[in-house]
Amino acid sequence: MKLKRNERVGALIKILSDHPNEIFTLSYFTNRFNAAKSTISEDIVVAKKMMEDLSLGKIETIAGAAGGVKYIPFTSRENNRVVLEDICKKLAESNRIVPGTFLYMADIIYNPALVRKMGEIFASQFIGETVDYVVTVETKGIPIALMTANALNVPLIILRRDSKVTEGSTVSINYVSGSTGKIQTMSISKRAIKNGANVIIIDDFMKAGGTAKGMIDMMKEFEANVKGIGVMIATSEPESKLVDQYIPLLILQNVDEKKGRILVYPNENLV
Amino acid sequence: MKLKRNERVGALIKILSDHPNEIFTLSYFTNRFNAAKSTISEDIVVAKKMMEDLSLGKIETIAGAAGGVKYIPFTSRENNRVVLEDICKKLAESNRIVPGTFLYMADIIYNPALVRKMGEIFASQFIGETVDYVVTVETKGIPIALMTANALNVPLIILRRDSKVTEGSTVSINYVSGSTGKIQTMSISKRAIKNGANVIIIDDFMKAGGTAKGMIDMMKEFEANVKGIGVMIATSEPESKLVDQYIPLLILQNVDEKKGRILVYPNENLV
Repeated sequence: MKLKRNERVGALIKILSDHPNEIFTLSYFTNRFNAAKSTISEDIVVAKKMMEDLSLGKIETIAGAAGGVKYIPFTSRENNRVVLEDICKKLAESNRIVPGTFLYMADIIYNPALVRKMGEIFASQFIGETVDYVVTVETKGIPIALMTANALNVPLIILRRDSKVTEGSTVSINYVSGSTGKIQTMSISKRAIKNGANVIIIDDFMKAGGTAKGMIDMMKEFEANVKGIGVMIATSEPESKLVDQYIPLLILQNVDEKKGRILVYPNENLV
Repeated sequence: MKLKRNERVGALIKILSDHPNEIFTLSYFTNRFNAAKSTISEDIVVAKKMMEDLSLGKIETIAGAAGGVKYIPFTSRENNRVVLEDICKKLAESNRIVPGTFLYMADIIYNPALVRKMGEIFASQFIGETVDYVVTVETKGIPIALMTANALNVPLIILRRDSKVTEGSTVSINYVSGSTGKIQTMSISKRAIKNGANVIIIDDFMKAGGTAKGMIDMMKEFEANVKGIGVMIATSEPESKLVDQYIPLLILQNVDEKKGRILVYPNENLV
């Protein structure tokens, strides 16, 4: 089947954006579209320019023997503002407050469209970095972490709260929750992480940073380099967390149970 | 900015496929692309035909006041065969067997590219059905369930093994694991599911079906209609499960620890 340019451009964009950060050779497209290399190269130029003009992400060509073309999900500050302000608006609904001044968030953190966008924002912060794994701890951070891993095209690692028989030999550590002072355990199969890997840590919520600190300690067991930490929401208090560098999407400043007021705003470095 | 047809077709496909099962009005595209309705309609015809010709999914136009155009991830049998045989090949590696004849699967079930494809296969089985939620139980099924929810553009519901303080009032049930006979608990916030909803249940593994049965029982608490059950792997034994209707992607026939042989094959109704 011979395709027209507009069909080839559409198909190329579909295939690339279904596989973020995966390199496709030009030969893949010459075979699949039954077209010459020079034709495909022109298609890529068209696709690349359009994607940038409309802020739909980046298409990058890689030269050399291992070369080809790939799609990089990249979110602009303007896009981040729209996404994060929308989430803030949802989070500020007073009926989210549950006893103990916690916020009910399951409808947000388990909403595929929202977590996909959050994952793309996180992935955009690590463009150009080598990342081998995205690491999270069960349960609530998993969807955001998975979508970050999807955008970066790397495996997700889920640390468990207990060690399961189906994991084979495991590494376990104890850590202290920064906010409650309670000792907790996390564990992971020994074979889950290659030694010396580059990882980023993603979680849904950070108060004192004890869980993030626990994940960093766990990564030390694998001599992994933590290249960054991303959390959906960080509380503004305590200001001093147990970890130094982290990227919150949103800052939760106050939950006033009596007045039913929730004060949350986007991280201004992202918007 | 005035776009050319090949740019418009590319952008239209990118926007639609980034938002599976979400209806976009024609006005959305006339505004965003600065083009006439008739022009956009022609673009849609081009995109629709190309997507079908290349088996890249479906683009559907919806007539009427709430009408517009949407992308439906649809996987062909041929595509399913390639995806599922690839996963079988990975699963058959003898070093996956961990003591107790369990299989180590974290590298597969937490691989975003693989779970995305599995999610699209599940979603393809429910095209035309009304689905309000995808339901799973923590932890291992979450990535596949999330990608299924993403393809269907519906919220994910995660049943917890214990009840967390941040969830507000919860509903808990006890269920009996069909394979071990052990009593277990699952719980979910009362506000997570609207009464009378249509749900599909997704999990990573089914042996006797006790967990799936537990999820069905939980859904009864919300008067929900279970429209289907999808599991990544079902064991061939016991043949009689605690649930009647379920769609496995793969059948695990045998794990021979001594010989290091794992016999697993795709569900032949899907390929």
